[in-house]
Amino acid sequence: MKGFFTGFDLGGTKMYCLLVREDGRIVERLRAKTQAGGSATRLVDGMVASIDELLARASLDRSQLSAVGIGAPGAVDFENGIVLNMPNLGLTDLPLKKLLQQRLKLPVLVENDVNAGTWAEFAGGAAKGCRHVVGIFPGTGIGGGLILDGRLYRGAGGGAGEIGHTIVQLDGRECACGQHDQVLGEYGCLEALASRTAIAKDLVVLAATGRAPSVLEDAGTDYTKVKSGVIARAVKSGNADVIRLVARAARFLGVGMANCVNIFNPELIVIGGGLVEKLGETYLREAEKSMRAHALSGLVRKVKVVQSVFGDDAVALGASLLAAESKA
Amino acid sequence: MKGFFTGFDLGGTKMYCLLVREDGRIVERLRAKTQAGGSATRLVDGMVASIDELLARASLDRSQLSAVGIGAPGAVDFENGIVLNMPNLGLTDLPLKKLLQQRLKLPVLVENDVNAGTWAEFAGGAAKGCRHVVGIFPGTGIGGGLILDGRLYRGAGGGAGEIGHTIVQLDGRECACGQHDQVLGEYGCLEALASRTAIAKDLVVLAATGRAPSVLEDAGTDYTKVKSGVIARAVKSGNADVIRLVARAARFLGVGMANCVNIFNPELIVIGGGLVEKLGETYLREAEKSMRAHALSGLVRKVKVVQSVFGDDAVALGASLLAAESKA
Repeated sequence: MKGFFTGFDLGGTKMYCLLVREDGRIVERLRAKTQAGGSATRLVDGMVASIDELLARASLDRSQLSAVGIGAPGAVDFENGIVLNMPNLGLTDLPLKKLLQQRLKLPVLVENDVNAGTWAEFAGGAAKGCRHVVGIFPGTGIGGGLILDGRLYRGAGGGAGEIGHTIVQLDGRECACGQHDQVLGEYGCLEALASRTAIAKDLVVLAATGRAPSVLEDAGTDYTKVKSGVIARAVKSGNADVIRLVARAARFLGVGMANCVNIFNPELIVIGGGLVEKLGETYLREAEKSMRAHALSGLVRKVKVVQSVFGDDAVALGASLLAAESKA
Repeated sequence: MKGFFTGFDLGGTKMYCLLVREDGRIVERLRAKTQAGGSATRLVDGMVASIDELLARASLDRSQLSAVGIGAPGAVDFENGIVLNMPNLGLTDLPLKKLLQQRLKLPVLVENDVNAGTWAEFAGGAAKGCRHVVGIFPGTGIGGGLILDGRLYRGAGGGAGEIGHTIVQLDGRECACGQHDQVLGEYGCLEALASRTAIAKDLVVLAATGRAPSVLEDAGTDYTKVKSGVIARAVKSGNADVIRLVARAARFLGVGMANCVNIFNPELIVIGGGLVEKLGETYLREAEKSMRAHALSGLVRKVKVVQSVFGDDAVALGASLLAAESKA
């Protein structure tokens, strides 16, 4: 019997994979390191090994697998299944769909990770029953996913939803995208103000100056080591400076959410990703309060703000559901 | 024979009406004052009189009219045909569709004005043949219209596309919407930085201090009298201060356009409305340059920026086309 799917949340340093039944139930979960070192073959080897491991755990074999879905970070050429940029892996224009299809002889779908995560929430999670949904996933960056009129909206080239790279403060901070300072010397991406990375850059200054002992203990003064759990521990310790920095990032996030309200007139905004997973309700409500202060009252009145139901599973689950749907 | 439509561009001080043939050709044009003084009946009387005048000019009568489309400013409850707010007319929650249908016994469609204008450009103008289009019309405010996957996107409650009220500079200027300063004392709407009103507020300071003689001559120091033609004349006079202010507004507009590129991944952005009509190519290219500097290069590369083909006709024509389509 066929009827199983695998879904990947493919990150630059690790991958998270699920084995999913036709009815959407998760059967097995697996975490593995993403290893490539500039070689697409090595990356695909690792993904295939993860699939085989998942199948073995469930006493299944490849003949029972129907399709594979992959959620990948950043820009994806959806039509052709190409991941445009994975700087951590030393790979650009990676034809992941073609490579995996050749190896597995199965349908493969490649989607932007937050598109996939938002789809999961829409299909059976926090946004079930809605037709107009914006998904925002703050983490290393801030990704966005758009469900418009009940359909995943990808734009002309599959690149829609880059909410993290909208400008909310022209004289804000430099962003990793590097796109916003070439002519006018201006920055101001939402992501540079509200992502985990933005918080981390400020926290290490506190750590270095003796004002955030738990951060110093957990991560030293290297901002790339300040994961969401490190931030959460510093917040829980009651450090007022840390709490203030996190609240500021949440308020900036709320501005980005407000812009989405005014542009899309959605029913619901679902916040996912690592930051909200670890910081929870207080963080979410601070962002919501800011959203309500910054959006048109006629549009924001009916908007609900909720946390992802699927948490760490969202992206990989959504990718597998999209693969199942496109196969059908 | 039936087969004619009327379309309205309903403004707070004047209305512009078209008589349109089934094939989309404009037969007659009419400008009239919008008069209401708080009375919906008086407003509807004026609109019916305009329709009768258009028909009379073309030697037609009401029996040959198939439907009426209205483009109205600001938020519109599309489902119920209600214009939520017309402050200049002293009217709120105006059930325009119901009132006009009762009087004319004809199908009536009420749509946001820039939605209608963008639809006209999509149906047969500057955006013909595209499937993913953002329309931005800077004038008194800045309205937006969205064509996503070949369909007009209205959001959950018909209020989508309020691009003018997205925040691009949190510590920017106070906006007429009054929504953005209630909690945090912050403003920063695109419209408060890039609309005709934004330019006008700066120009009257120049006028009052002897630095913009043509503005003083045309409009005095009352910013509400600084229309697009006044700005255009001051630019043509070669006044360097005026040119700089207009260029700054165009660059802010470009930031809003960049945000739309990163969110929607569109094929084309069409700029309409009074400001671009009067300021033309130089203004448009300044905005485009700023857009290209502020958007993700992978997404902006293929985006075209064009001026509205239908100009002053766009909103009324789009409204009549939408009415024709929804009737069919």
